[in-house]
Amino acid sequence: MRIHVITTGGSLDVEYTLQGTFAIGPPVVASLLERARTQHEITLESLCRKDSATLDDTDRDLIRHRVQETDAEHVLVTHGTDTMTNTAEHLRTITGKVIVVTGAMQPARMTDSDAPFNLGLAVAALQTLPHGVYIAMSGRIFPAGHARKDRARGVFV
Amino acid sequence: MRIHVITTGGSLDVEYTLQGTFAIGPPVVASLLERARTQHEITLESLCRKDSATLDDTDRDLIRHRVQETDAEHVLVTHGTDTMTNTAEHLRTITGKVIVVTGAMQPARMTDSDAPFNLGLAVAALQTLPHGVYIAMSGRIFPAGHARKDRARGVFV
Amino acid sequence: MRIHVITTGGSLDVEYTLQGTFAIGPPVVASLLERARTQHEITLESLCRKDSATLDDTDRDLIRHRVQETDAEHVLVTHGTDTMTNTAEHLRTITGKVIVVTGAMQPARMTDSDAPFNLGLAVAALQTLPHGVYIAMSGRIFPAGHARKDRARGVFV
Amino acid sequence: MRIHVITTGGSLDVEYTLQGTFAIGPPVVASLLERARTQHEITLESLCRKDSATLDDTDRDLIRHRVQETDAEHVLVTHGTDTMTNTAEHLRTITGKVIVVTGAMQPARMTDSDAPFNLGLAVAALQTLPHGVYIAMSGRIFPAGHARKDRARGVFV
Repeated sequence: MRIHVITTGGSLDVEYTLQGTFAIGPPVVASLLERARTQHEITLESLCRKDSATLDDTDRDLIRHRVQETDAEHVLVTHGTDTMTNTAEHLRTITGKVIVVTGAMQPARMTDSDAPFNLGLAVAALQTLPHGVYIAMSGRIFPAGHARKDRARGVFV
Repeated sequence: MRIHVITTGGSLDVEYTLQGTFAIGPPVVASLLERARTQHEITLESLCRKDSATLDDTDRDLIRHRVQETDAEHVLVTHGTDTMTNTAEHLRTITGKVIVVTGAMQPARMTDSDAPFNLGLAVAALQTLPHGVYIAMSGRIFPAGHARKDRARGVFV
Repeated sequence: MRIHVITTGGSLDVEYTLQGTFAIGPPVVASLLERARTQHEITLESLCRKDSATLDDTDRDLIRHRVQETDAEHVLVTHGTDTMTNTAEHLRTITGKVIVVTGAMQPARMTDSDAPFNLGLAVAALQTLPHGVYIAMSGRIFPAGHARKDRARGVFV
Repeated sequence: MRIHVITTGGSLDVEYTLQGTFAIGPPVVASLLERARTQHEITLESLCRKDSATLDDTDRDLIRHRVQETDAEHVLVTHGTDTMTNTAEHLRTITGKVIVVTGAMQPARMTDSDAPFNLGLAVAALQTLPHGVYIAMSGRIFPAGHARKDRARGVFV
């Protein structure tokens, strides 16, 4: 199976800068998939490096456009958690593909990150679910439109 | 959803001893699921701590017995990779449950482990697949009887 | 040997919050010293949790007061890197003690942190150097007044 | 300051193999020193990859020969913990150099390793101590001949 990965930024890719601030760094997903010894063909597209709270409809149109344009049937979108549910809903009109949106509450570069687990969750969803748009977070797979982020607890419900 | 986790040992739980040897330590799965912020009810059963190369039919009968006995519909079995496929086949006669067997090529206590990814893969399979027995390794979900370990490459195919 | 550790915050103790921002979390030094199997008597005092760019003379007076007051001869101060050199100079009038100031460019909670190495550097300096005030960073031990932070490169020279 | 590093193996460099055993892998010291942003000139010499319990006098003669031959005044030897004290004593006849022997109880490739701390300890000792041979372990600096490994507790005393 081939998986096309589109990265958009978010906490998943956050790094700590020399200036003592967090910034969205180079995407980590390729190294995480390699460490997991994933036996899929992976293609990668780094679309943007944004905090998802700053994404607007133009950004979401671009993400939708890129998901539609790829000839891959299985698309993984990595995304900040703040507006992940909005983007997932924005992708719902796409047909003929399995699309899974995931991210992380703790950056992959931190020792206690949820990132590798979430990627495993997403990769399983890509191969077990019918065409549609899904969110993979908090150990759960949600169809787009059926998840919301509980900001106080830092989980998707 | 409730997930009952049965741990049997394997590389996943390996630790490095004061004597400079490896041993199968206390199960890591609870801490990995917590770090992943998993929103499922988890029950844990530490059945044994064995290198799976040493498991015999008595051990496999015990694992099958425990999987059957639990009232949970969703069962995750953590297991060494050497005979994971044998145990999965041994569980195939169990009906009415989703059973996913996973493990790791690198111990969870090592920095480059595939363990958290594999657990994510398994947790997604538990909630997306019909009743049956599956192996979650190498980024893939295999029905029992359809996977083998490629020992030279360290992947399941 | 007894080491009294005074923590003041800085990148060393940074954590990533549920709101996707960084904050100075609970001090990490005790767990790092335990992991290193350090055979010293350690006493800990969490004085403040501040970004060192925000420390003023009142804060530095308080740090100096606490270093002076402890009956320990060997004092380790963990501190943000931005004004670590200023605080070290502020402590120079203290006599009869070995005082080492250290911190980290990358938070200890990140996988590629310099924190454990820097703590090792500081703990060795505490036991090998005469009374005085020192900075332990970038693999080097500097007497107070002889180090500056090269902000562009993220190292002390 | 230039530091010449001679690596001999030991738990520090242990990796977990595809066969589920531990082996002594490529030396980790260069990447640990880089992560620590060490501002010294480092030269590296990978002499052997041995469990120190298997080192004999021929091996120790070779280590002594290499330490003597290098034109560096500051030499760091990474070594297994079982016979680290023997090797340090074997080096005592060397004059005109600061020689520090260190290693780790937990491999650097494990998440809870003492390796980066121990390297920091050793690097500080190299620059603060007079010519001689030292062991840097358990948060302490011991002159050669004054340390022994407490095998039951996994610490040097």
